[in-house]
Amino acid sequence: MTEQKKRTTIVLFSGDYDKAMAAYIIANGAAAYDHEVTIFHTFWGLNALRKDEPMELKKGFLEKMFAKMMPRGADKMGLSNMNFAGMGPKMIKHVMKKHNAMTLSQLIEMAQEQDVKLVACTMTMDLLGLQQEELLDDIEYAGVAAYLADAEDGNVNLFI
Amino acid sequence: MTEQKKRTTIVLFSGDYDKAMAAYIIANGAAAYDHEVTIFHTFWGLNALRKDEPMELKKGFLEKMFAKMMPRGADKMGLSNMNFAGMGPKMIKHVMKKHNAMTLSQLIEMAQEQDVKLVACTMTMDLLGLQQEELLDDIEYAGVAAYLADAEDGNVNLFI
Amino acid sequence: MTEQKKRTTIVLFSGDYDKAMAAYIIANGAAAYDHEVTIFHTFWGLNALRKDEPMELKKGFLEKMFAKMMPRGADKMGLSNMNFAGMGPKMIKHVMKKHNAMTLSQLIEMAQEQDVKLVACTMTMDLLGLQQEELLDDIEYAGVAAYLADAEDGNVNLFI
Repeated sequence: MTEQKKRTTIVLFSGDYDKAMAAYIIANGAAAYDHEVTIFHTFWGLNALRKDEPMELKKGFLEKMFAKMMPRGADKMGLSNMNFAGMGPKMIKHVMKKHNAMTLSQLIEMAQEQDVKLVACTMTMDLLGLQQEELLDDIEYAGVAAYLADAEDGNVNLFI
Repeated sequence: MTEQKKRTTIVLFSGDYDKAMAAYIIANGAAAYDHEVTIFHTFWGLNALRKDEPMELKKGFLEKMFAKMMPRGADKMGLSNMNFAGMGPKMIKHVMKKHNAMTLSQLIEMAQEQDVKLVACTMTMDLLGLQQEELLDDIEYAGVAAYLADAEDGNVNLFI
Repeated sequence: MTEQKKRTTIVLFSGDYDKAMAAYIIANGAAAYDHEVTIFHTFWGLNALRKDEPMELKKGFLEKMFAKMMPRGADKMGLSNMNFAGMGPKMIKHVMKKHNAMTLSQLIEMAQEQDVKLVACTMTMDLLGLQQEELLDDIEYAGVAAYLADAEDGNVNLFI
């Protein structure tokens, strides 16, 4: 009798730095305990997957607006709380450095090394005008059906 | 041997348009895959169930204040992010129209057609002074015990 | 054959009064239905566990700043919505009193009486400079591994 692997499936909806950190810390922990882990990035959570560099892509007016207004990648994201006009994220990054805590970018890298499946929600990419070239390499693209297929057999299902 | 239906149970706590959209997209997807689906609306999530028209109901002062300050129905709700003094929701609705994406009201209608069980939390209705006449028809009324009864056998449990 | 107890595990990430209320209402409900219940407090959710009185503790500059800026205990927390410069929480507390609803502090007390396991995330305590003396008595201290051990066999897993 083979034992089935445990499974953790996280929807990352939020574009907040601290919430994305929480998602990736749980994901990396679960991967270390040999779970099959998926993070399904939708809406503002897609911003965690954006590459840092600006890009010249053909986009409509609204899509350009969104692209400008949304943070470009993990390091540019704000906090869910105590943002204080940007002072909060700086303070958090200071204490994280002091405590040798991993940054969100490092947590994402670690997740990729541990084979956490990173998925970008194609429906909301469309809505926000995000294109595959703008997002990190080696991620997958799928919709809500694929999410549900992963989640329905999951042990730990979270919406963050 | 009969196979049991899979079950998805979502607590919709948030009163944000985008988060409610995410809840209803997952719910409609799960219903399409033949899950038994419940959305339990509590706190600000109750606003998604409010009817659009203003009503003359007997209410205390605080209940009247809440009724005025809270959005009346799905189409009046704001965004969790990038609200930009109301510009965000307009932009989102523009791109949704352009991409033929369903509005929140349409997603709620679809959920009702697919027999997704829409529940309003009676305890928080009381707290916010909301009455049954103000909410959509054909929904159920229950408390945390009913939620737990659904959720404890669930495959996908989310708090949104 | 002994039947296993059902299990509810909640991550309380949010520092909002209303979200913490929802977490504790679900937790107390689940405990009443004989679930084994854990609330794992991380990031801003740790504030719900802070004692009310100010303390003189040796802390670095940033840790002092965080300690000052964050709400000291359940009664000081703001709302996720309709905060309106602090008017929202006052209104909510008024209607709660009127309806004889339990305050967050009372819900936490009830959870402790019902043996809900309250856990403080040591990693984020470190990050925010919170020390054990500042938090409620009779709680546990653990990291993400302990959370996952509880959650992976859980019936109801929520991230709030």
